[in-house]
Amino acid sequence: MGTTGLWLVGARGSVATTVVTGLLALRSRVVGPTACVSAQPEFAELGLPDWDDILVGGHDIVDTPLEKRAEQLTEAGVLPHRVLESVRSGLSETDAEIRPGYHPATHSGSQADAARRLADDIGEFAERHGLEQVVVVNVSSTEPVFPGLPEHGTLKALESAMAVPGRTVLPPSSVAAYAALRSGCPFVDFTPSTGIRLPALEELARRQALPYAGSDGKTGETLVRSALAPMFASRALDVRSWAGTNLLGGGDGLTLADAEHAGSKLASKGRGLATLLGKDVTAPLHIDNVPDLGEQKVAWDNISFEGFLGVRMSLQFTWSGYDSALAAPLVLDLARFVAKAHEAGRSGALGALGFFFKDPMGTDEHRLAEQYAALREWAATL
Amino acid sequence: MGTTGLWLVGARGSVATTVVTGLLALRSRVVGPTACVSAQPEFAELGLPDWDDILVGGHDIVDTPLEKRAEQLTEAGVLPHRVLESVRSGLSETDAEIRPGYHPATHSGSQADAARRLADDIGEFAERHGLEQVVVVNVSSTEPVFPGLPEHGTLKALESAMAVPGRTVLPPSSVAAYAALRSGCPFVDFTPSTGIRLPALEELARRQALPYAGSDGKTGETLVRSALAPMFASRALDVRSWAGTNLLGGGDGLTLADAEHAGSKLASKGRGLATLLGKDVTAPLHIDNVPDLGEQKVAWDNISFEGFLGVRMSLQFTWSGYDSALAAPLVLDLARFVAKAHEAGRSGALGALGFFFKDPMGTDEHRLAEQYAALREWAATL
Amino acid sequence: MGTTGLWLVGARGSVATTVVTGLLALRSRVVGPTACVSAQPEFAELGLPDWDDILVGGHDIVDTPLEKRAEQLTEAGVLPHRVLESVRSGLSETDAEIRPGYHPATHSGSQADAARRLADDIGEFAERHGLEQVVVVNVSSTEPVFPGLPEHGTLKALESAMAVPGRTVLPPSSVAAYAALRSGCPFVDFTPSTGIRLPALEELARRQALPYAGSDGKTGETLVRSALAPMFASRALDVRSWAGTNLLGGGDGLTLADAEHAGSKLASKGRGLATLLGKDVTAPLHIDNVPDLGEQKVAWDNISFEGFLGVRMSLQFTWSGYDSALAAPLVLDLARFVAKAHEAGRSGALGALGFFFKDPMGTDEHRLAEQYAALREWAATL
Amino acid sequence: MGTTGLWLVGARGSVATTVVTGLLALRSRVVGPTACVSAQPEFAELGLPDWDDILVGGHDIVDTPLEKRAEQLTEAGVLPHRVLESVRSGLSETDAEIRPGYHPATHSGSQADAARRLADDIGEFAERHGLEQVVVVNVSSTEPVFPGLPEHGTLKALESAMAVPGRTVLPPSSVAAYAALRSGCPFVDFTPSTGIRLPALEELARRQALPYAGSDGKTGETLVRSALAPMFASRALDVRSWAGTNLLGGGDGLTLADAEHAGSKLASKGRGLATLLGKDVTAPLHIDNVPDLGEQKVAWDNISFEGFLGVRMSLQFTWSGYDSALAAPLVLDLARFVAKAHEAGRSGALGALGFFFKDPMGTDEHRLAEQYAALREWAATL
Repeated sequence: MGTTGLWLVGARGSVATTVVTGLLALRSRVVGPTACVSAQPEFAELGLPDWDDILVGGHDIVDTPLEKRAEQLTEAGVLPHRVLESVRSGLSETDAEIRPGYHPATHSGSQADAARRLADDIGEFAERHGLEQVVVVNVSSTEPVFPGLPEHGTLKALESAMAVPGRTVLPPSSVAAYAALRSGCPFVDFTPSTGIRLPALEELARRQALPYAGSDGKTGETLVRSALAPMFASRALDVRSWAGTNLLGGGDGLTLADAEHAGSKLASKGRGLATLLGKDVTAPLHIDNVPDLGEQKVAWDNISFEGFLGVRMSLQFTWSGYDSALAAPLVLDLARFVAKAHEAGRSGALGALGFFFKDPMGTDEHRLAEQYAALREWAATL
Repeated sequence: MGTTGLWLVGARGSVATTVVTGLLALRSRVVGPTACVSAQPEFAELGLPDWDDILVGGHDIVDTPLEKRAEQLTEAGVLPHRVLESVRSGLSETDAEIRPGYHPATHSGSQADAARRLADDIGEFAERHGLEQVVVVNVSSTEPVFPGLPEHGTLKALESAMAVPGRTVLPPSSVAAYAALRSGCPFVDFTPSTGIRLPALEELARRQALPYAGSDGKTGETLVRSALAPMFASRALDVRSWAGTNLLGGGDGLTLADAEHAGSKLASKGRGLATLLGKDVTAPLHIDNVPDLGEQKVAWDNISFEGFLGVRMSLQFTWSGYDSALAAPLVLDLARFVAKAHEAGRSGALGALGFFFKDPMGTDEHRLAEQYAALREWAATL
Repeated sequence: MGTTGLWLVGARGSVATTVVTGLLALRSRVVGPTACVSAQPEFAELGLPDWDDILVGGHDIVDTPLEKRAEQLTEAGVLPHRVLESVRSGLSETDAEIRPGYHPATHSGSQADAARRLADDIGEFAERHGLEQVVVVNVSSTEPVFPGLPEHGTLKALESAMAVPGRTVLPPSSVAAYAALRSGCPFVDFTPSTGIRLPALEELARRQALPYAGSDGKTGETLVRSALAPMFASRALDVRSWAGTNLLGGGDGLTLADAEHAGSKLASKGRGLATLLGKDVTAPLHIDNVPDLGEQKVAWDNISFEGFLGVRMSLQFTWSGYDSALAAPLVLDLARFVAKAHEAGRSGALGALGFFFKDPMGTDEHRLAEQYAALREWAATL
Repeated sequence: MGTTGLWLVGARGSVATTVVTGLLALRSRVVGPTACVSAQPEFAELGLPDWDDILVGGHDIVDTPLEKRAEQLTEAGVLPHRVLESVRSGLSETDAEIRPGYHPATHSGSQADAARRLADDIGEFAERHGLEQVVVVNVSSTEPVFPGLPEHGTLKALESAMAVPGRTVLPPSSVAAYAALRSGCPFVDFTPSTGIRLPALEELARRQALPYAGSDGKTGETLVRSALAPMFASRALDVRSWAGTNLLGGGDGLTLADAEHAGSKLASKGRGLATLLGKDVTAPLHIDNVPDLGEQKVAWDNISFEGFLGVRMSLQFTWSGYDSALAAPLVLDLARFVAKAHEAGRSGALGALGFFFKDPMGTDEHRLAEQYAALREWAATL
């Protein structure tokens, strides 16, 4: 494969900054590929794009340069000092590839105009660097839940509505997905925002014969849940309640703790648990904004279950991690796998990538081990 | 299938008492089969022996009647009061099927004599009740590590040595295994004791064309580890240390905390972790006797791992359970699966039952999800 | 002292049932006084009423007899079987001393009428048994927050409003407090409900020269907080956030998880933490109803703090307890201390009893060790 | 007060390096005095030596310069980058004040010679800088338990034995204490090593009319225990077991996990718990060396207790901290308080400093709140 473009929506956020820093560090061999699933021996023969053959650009609505963000993340413990020092020049080069993102509040004109502008940015990026293909990944902040509209039902209805000046028929994540697909690019939803999850956009992907994947990267508490819940199921232990608390700082803490915003995230977490356990259980879940934690995330789960003869037992776990450090390698993995799938002519929802997501599209499988087996099996066919 | 005998070595211990109480309660429909793997829908068509078609007998070196032990376990929270009340008569009937076990300290004569007596007990049990087959399961206390001897190498050498009066060439668990095999019974090692794990005994199993399974029931901390460790591996997260502490009371706490005894248990736990992670990690492990916990067991694990760009994160879990309640349904499962395998003519180490064991014989697979898949696949062939 | 009456508002709830069961068991020497603060050697010389000299009656709006409730609590693990069996007759005797409680939904007439009826019940109880004094303790379910009204400002205004038929000027807890004071009885608020915390009622207590104490029994998470927070303060460690999650079942889980109801409980918890730390910190707090936990309560706190040179560290704790078992001995302690204080002629808010409360009246001291010292010092003066 | 010397035994270890770095940073106002007990308002009027008036020197048997150690501690997360950069020159100046420590393996001649040399180093330090006084604090690695000898009984016997060439009558920590006292300096034992805890050395302190304090800085698990145990005691909750696990890396992990070395540390921890609870409880305690944790320390405690009517409940806590960051401010506090006490003419064991120690000398009080009260009271008298 020639050079692959990775176009990040939210290109100056914590996750994107960690993706870029990490890619540069991997390229210069300052670090090894710990946490990169696609770099494991079982995927070595697939011909996935090398670190040297991935070029990053993107959209963002904020101006803070990548280098500044990387410094903040270094302060916060997400990036090691020595890594930061080794990638400074690469960061400013990448920063030059970032274009202003779309936000309804600052845009006048129709959403069709906005989408056209976004698509042009991607197209120029590809042309400027002679890229064979560009994978678009949404890593921007989680949006508030966007109401369903009749115009989301068909591509035709959607495009008519998008053409109306001043009308907001799509949330930003879906405008980004639309622009990606119109540019002939595969799209990956790494957030729980609406993104491509609308019939009209799926229709567009079908017409363009493009693959897509999502949604909502599985990086922490849900990852552990998808490893543990099958244990209870296979041992016929009767989970009676599964309570969770998430403490997080950073921008995400602020966004997600907000009741309205949290809607989409909590819903995507809940769906998985019921599927994993094969039944609904009492599962209160909280996301709290705790600014002093910075980029760190602490999750505590209390699982109460019934065993033989009805006796009660419990399992509790505490997960302490850095969300961006957990997400970034998965974004690189997804870019590599989706690029390869695109090259191999796959289209539609890539269910085999469910391993990476809280709320996988194209599959109902939430069990981690089964997802990993499905990934390996699918990858072998590329 | 006709009636199947389940012969428990250590028939008056906590696990055995819970097995018998549970079986009686299941038979009378006082409780449902929570925690019984073999009662799940996927195994419904196999023709495993019904609860009504399993009859329990056994050996033990202590005299405390089952009913008395069941009362103690009820006090300790392992058995519900209403269950105890519903099975009292069944407990004393079963108690009448228990014969004195073998212990070198109280036995004069040769180990061959001892084994013959044990085998006769099993044979008479089968004859008395017209049983088609008897599965022998060792649920007695963990033994101290028994030294390897040249006589363990071949059946011939072993039997010569066993014939010498006063000589202790085998630990009690292996005498029990020998007696089971000589009686034509499959043998299951639910403890980490030596049991059948000697070339001479495996030779005997081969000659008798008998199946066997083991060893060391996977009931708590190790169960969770076998669900979690593959998560780290599949996500390429680099586990740097995995420390564990086990607090337990009851007889097991006393036995296992003893340095010499702990040898076998700790070794069997450690083997699994290295296999699961594909490498050795710092993994200090403690078992403490905490009498006030009674039958309860509390385990805490601290897993420290490295993620993307070398950043450090951690997962901690606390498991609080009742060991006997966790073990007992697995003993019933094993009796049912092994009986069916025996009927189906299988012999040798049943690796497909590795799902139930910390230190599985006949397989190197320690990953829980893969073990469960192997169990289902194998069961379908019976 | 002669016989002291203990009049429980909510006399058939979990806490009250545990109080009565425990008192009967203590009286018959079936158990020792574990968890009874007032039974410690340092209070032995005070002449507090003996277990034999306390007689229980009360009000409740539900009919379930104490014996039935005690059976449920035994099932739930709060009461041991052997204790239940030893107190059955005493439970039904006590049950006969319980009168219908007041609830606006089932009462017609004025609140003055209601209060008069409640006071008469207490008076007849005292007369019937020749009691020297009766201490009234509110252990009923937490009420929704009751809006402040101008009529709460003076006793005169309050009594005028209470006389209006059909008018609800007080929540039930305050009607109970009013009735107690009018009967010449000291009043203890063991819940966060309004109770005596109104200027008009404090005026009444003053006029009657009665002591009172409250509010909201400190039984679990807050107890631990009041022991731990001073550690951070005295070591100059800078607590940056203190997040808490409470999982509870039982009736309390249902009541408290309800957003409106939770208002009073969460507020009373928050006040203490800020006082303990000497500043406001980010302190998200949740109470979740998890029915399968039954009477058990599990609380998890995550404390993030800054140490020397700004380095971040953390302390997490998990508390698993039975709320009623934690509350009941404190109710007995309070009855004994308040009876003695009443006898000794004390009146007004008994700040020295702050040791027992989340939101102490009559003192600003929340530090556990200091509260205990204050209690001992005060008790010595009685 | 004029300038006070702080002479550190183990002056290039993690704790000492953090002490020096922190003192320099405090002096230059790069950081505030978080975690410095002596910098709290209640001690502001005492006239303790200012940060500007403390000068550090010391002994060590290793050569790694302070700056190099500080870089390692920065990598390990104990020291912030910006702090390191601001103190580099000060570190090398302080490093020039460090003299070779004493170790029996590298010393020929008598221990009297060794002590004389150590005392001379301290004397020259004082003279070189015109110091009014020097406080010697032992922060070197924990020693193996040193056997008691008859010569430890009196100063005369000790000094005779010390004069014998080649004889090792004292462990290095006690040689350091002897040298300090002979130089007229107060001595503080921040480790559990023998140090000054010998009748002969206490006799010397008495003769020299010098104050001393110790031993074993209370920095983590024991600190929390001393805050929590009184909670159980004052509430009459019956602690039945208190199990602890400590995971630590760094040099301390290696030293302490070693069975022989651990002896002194574990003993000093155990003494406190029994005193706090007023009785012996089952209290298994482990210290594991987990190199990947680096300077971090993770402790987990499981406390099982009995409440009202014998019902079982539990409290678990997990403490994650940096040992050196916790210890260093206490060393500065001790230097300030002891210098002031010395100036004020106090001598003997300073029991009022028990607040800082796991195994306090001069007092039996282990309860944190009471220790803090004692400290404040005592400080007010200086």
